Amino acid sequence: MAHIDLALDETRFPGITGLMRFRPETAKPLNELAEVLLRAPNSLPAGERELIAAYVSGLNECDFCRNSHSAFAAAQLDAGMTVVEEVRANPETAPISAKLRALLRIAAAVRDDGREVTPKLVEAARAEGATDVEIHDTVLIAAAFCMFNRYVDGLGTLAPADPAGYTESARRIVEHGYRA
Amino acid sequence: MAHIDLALDETRFPGITGLMRFRPETAKPLNELAEVLLRAPNSLPAGERELIAAYVSGLNECDFCRNSHSAFAAAQLDAGMTVVEEVRANPETAPISAKLRALLRIAAAVRDDGREVTPKLVEAARAEGATDVEIHDTVLIAAAFCMFNRYVDGLGTLAPADPAGYTESARRIVEHGYRA
Repeated sequence: MAHIDLALDETRFPGITGLMRFRPETAKPLNELAEVLLRAPNSLPAGERELIAAYVSGLNECDFCRNSHSAFAAAQLDAGMTVVEEVRANPETAPISAKLRALLRIAAAVRDDGREVTPKLVEAARAEGATDVEIHDTVLIAAAFCMFNRYVDGLGTLAPADPAGYTESARRIVEHGYRA
Repeated sequence: MAHIDLALDETRFPGITGLMRFRPETAKPLNELAEVLLRAPNSLPAGERELIAAYVSGLNECDFCRNSHSAFAAAQLDAGMTVVEEVRANPETAPISAKLRALLRIAAAVRDDGREVTPKLVEAARAEGATDVEIHDTVLIAAAFCMFNRYVDGLGTLAPADPAGYTESARRIVEHGYRA
């Protein structure tokens, strides 16, 4: 049970979904941020942006966010959950582009501490074709999930073990987006 | 100089301000989040909410955010910069209410890892009169600054050493808010 009384059935509204119903005033900008970062038109495909979110959430060991964004990534990547699991296990050997691998290295650095992002990491991403906007968005996605993960876990919300719920959420997010 | 080309004079637009001009699409929800969390009507005074932001930014050693939100807190607290500096040095001995001290303990736990927030920490805050919304907002403010700090430092932005710029920003934020 969450640390605060959300006044709802947490099995129906697990993780961040219950928090968003409890405090719609903060839910609005949080959903708008997720929509712009993860779904708005971008040279980085939505599936790859969700993969960055899933990877950072895995590093932060936030079960609800890791499972949710893994499902959202899998639903939007040709290689589905296979590549998501390979990235989560080891991005250095996963079958992804050299550009995405370089961006994931930046994301991992951001997750540790913003100051861990070195000019060398940024240059390496640029050498693989990453643009300044892609580097910017990678840093902000990784930073944003350091927020979402702490929000969800800091209030002690429920993370369902059954993967079916996450798959259903993925269908809804891919179809209707975060603002719906 | 920032890790990416912001196409502006960073001495005029340091820290997050240059990033927000570079990417207005993400600036919008970020500013709306700051406005709701730090300035919208709330039983926690705006100065105390800014103090939580300054404290977390200090723990994360993000100079730009720590200096900015210290100035924003000082401008809205009767005891001004004195109490801000005492909290940043040691919240356990700073001259603040028992409720705010209990909330700062929660904020420090969130900053380490969301899972560090224990029922005991939450109960202690509640025993000092903190409401569920105040506990929720404290967790989200602390989590949000784990994002803002990583965003600002992860892109290698400039943090001016001169305190005058932060004082001028404080005047503008207190008068016009984050959305202006």
